[in-house]
Amino acid sequence: MKIVITGGAGFLGQKLAAALLSRGTAAGPDGAEASITEIICIDRAAPAGLAQDVTYVEADISSPGIFDSVIPDDAAGIFHLAAVVSAEAEADFDLGMAINLDATRALLERCRALARPPRVIFASSVATFGVAPPVVDDDTPVRPLNSYGVEKVIGEYLVGEYSRRGFVDGRAVRLPTIVIRPGVPNKAASSFASSILREPLQGLQAICPVSKDLAIWIKSPRAAVADLIHAHDLPGDSWPDGLRVLNLPGLTVSVAEMAAALERAGGDAGLISWEPDAGIEAIVGSWPQGMKTDRADALGFSADENIDAVVRQFVEDELG
Amino acid sequence: MKIVITGGAGFLGQKLAAALLSRGTAAGPDGAEASITEIICIDRAAPAGLAQDVTYVEADISSPGIFDSVIPDDAAGIFHLAAVVSAEAEADFDLGMAINLDATRALLERCRALARPPRVIFASSVATFGVAPPVVDDDTPVRPLNSYGVEKVIGEYLVGEYSRRGFVDGRAVRLPTIVIRPGVPNKAASSFASSILREPLQGLQAICPVSKDLAIWIKSPRAAVADLIHAHDLPGDSWPDGLRVLNLPGLTVSVAEMAAALERAGGDAGLISWEPDAGIEAIVGSWPQGMKTDRADALGFSADENIDAVVRQFVEDELG
Repeated sequence: MKIVITGGAGFLGQKLAAALLSRGTAAGPDGAEASITEIICIDRAAPAGLAQDVTYVEADISSPGIFDSVIPDDAAGIFHLAAVVSAEAEADFDLGMAINLDATRALLERCRALARPPRVIFASSVATFGVAPPVVDDDTPVRPLNSYGVEKVIGEYLVGEYSRRGFVDGRAVRLPTIVIRPGVPNKAASSFASSILREPLQGLQAICPVSKDLAIWIKSPRAAVADLIHAHDLPGDSWPDGLRVLNLPGLTVSVAEMAAALERAGGDAGLISWEPDAGIEAIVGSWPQGMKTDRADALGFSADENIDAVVRQFVEDELG
Repeated sequence: MKIVITGGAGFLGQKLAAALLSRGTAAGPDGAEASITEIICIDRAAPAGLAQDVTYVEADISSPGIFDSVIPDDAAGIFHLAAVVSAEAEADFDLGMAINLDATRALLERCRALARPPRVIFASSVATFGVAPPVVDDDTPVRPLNSYGVEKVIGEYLVGEYSRRGFVDGRAVRLPTIVIRPGVPNKAASSFASSILREPLQGLQAICPVSKDLAIWIKSPRAAVADLIHAHDLPGDSWPDGLRVLNLPGLTVSVAEMAAALERAGGDAGLISWEPDAGIEAIVGSWPQGMKTDRADALGFSADENIDAVVRQFVEDELG
């Protein structure tokens, strides 16, 4: 069984590929456990340290017809993680629309032409919520206040519709902000949430553009990867028409609580430089601070224990 | 001030053009009442009886770049009514996507390039609701179960996002099923709702593909036209970001109640032939039977008195 990961050179894509390789199997088209024969990671550029046993394909997913050549006719599972992140999509509207909306549709059109409708796991986001109460639930309408969120919502509806039509077997999950991302700061508005932990844990300075009392909804990389695979493996009838998307479990933490966890883990919160950025605060502040995730809980999606466990995971996985 | 109506040769487009002509003014770009200097109706074909003082442009709105040539640079108000209707969009997925989604986006892109961001009134639909309680409200999530509904939802989000970006001043309204449409049956799944009144009122046979106890949410043509103009004229701050769409007032009526109203108006319900169609019943049955429309009510949108007034309106306006 062939698995495709778009955004496969990103930190989450790489962790997902590694987890799938380590498992060796996933739910096959008929629902039974099947061997994974190939993992194809599509991204703009292959990562520096190439994982063995993973096929990397360098491609611009906004190129017309690109998916015809990079997704094989017998692909059984597609994880669509590739995206222009939030602050970048806000800064460049056309780029965000091209990658987050048009490429998602092109991907679904390619899936429609495959030998058999593949399982498609679409990484949506907490950023789909904007005008909303501080804590949302599975029935809170999504009213995003940023381009990235709008594009993700439209992707959710496309995944749902292509599924109802029988073109794909789609499953969209709204990911919390992933903390702690390895690597360096990126153009996500939420980049700081990893940075203020990751950099000081390595004795480096970090910039925090939001206020200490801002609370966000987070999930660790391990839990996110587990949820993506779980979303893939769940039986199709867990995803009824009209309900092909759900909110994923997470933790509500304030910036102050993250700073406190940093100190408890031996880091120096004094390395955080507080430099307010109204644009970033506006985007991240429009996202919910928490989610009631009854549907995901009932379906067995995973949750992190607490912020200290999240910090510990980073130290174990990334700092050796 | 120039006004553009897509779908301008349709019954609603024609009535809207006539109402705007009769008024002679509408809210201008700065909010003050302004004279309407031209009404441009875009449609596949001009209607048989051309209204005086209206410019008809025959165009396929799915042609690339078409809006560049048919929407003038100084258009101030755009009513986007053109659509592939529900049963047709269900029967031809690609056609529905091309007209209901791609052409809507192309229209918004054209608006983005205009001299000044125009007011854009987007005709959405009760069909955006699918998985929902029988009576929805302004906070019920939209989970459509038909392609038309999905395409309309995506249009709502695009109108909202292009508005938040300042490219247009958009206002989306979810129209109930319009009853009584003049003319002949069309490919809307809800076509019967007009047909079972319209045809017998003229001594003709009508086909009803759904059961007598099916209830639907309806609005008369006069009230729909009034609401479209009201949506245009409302000040921009009535349409905050994230809330650029609302449910319109209407009436809940069952098919049996429509048949009874037909008899009270002197029509013969015996002319209705009951021919169940599971496909039609599935689409229409997925729509809400009623809406709580608190936002629209507070903003002064209009409601019909009752089904008898709706029937009377048709007799006055269409049967003379």
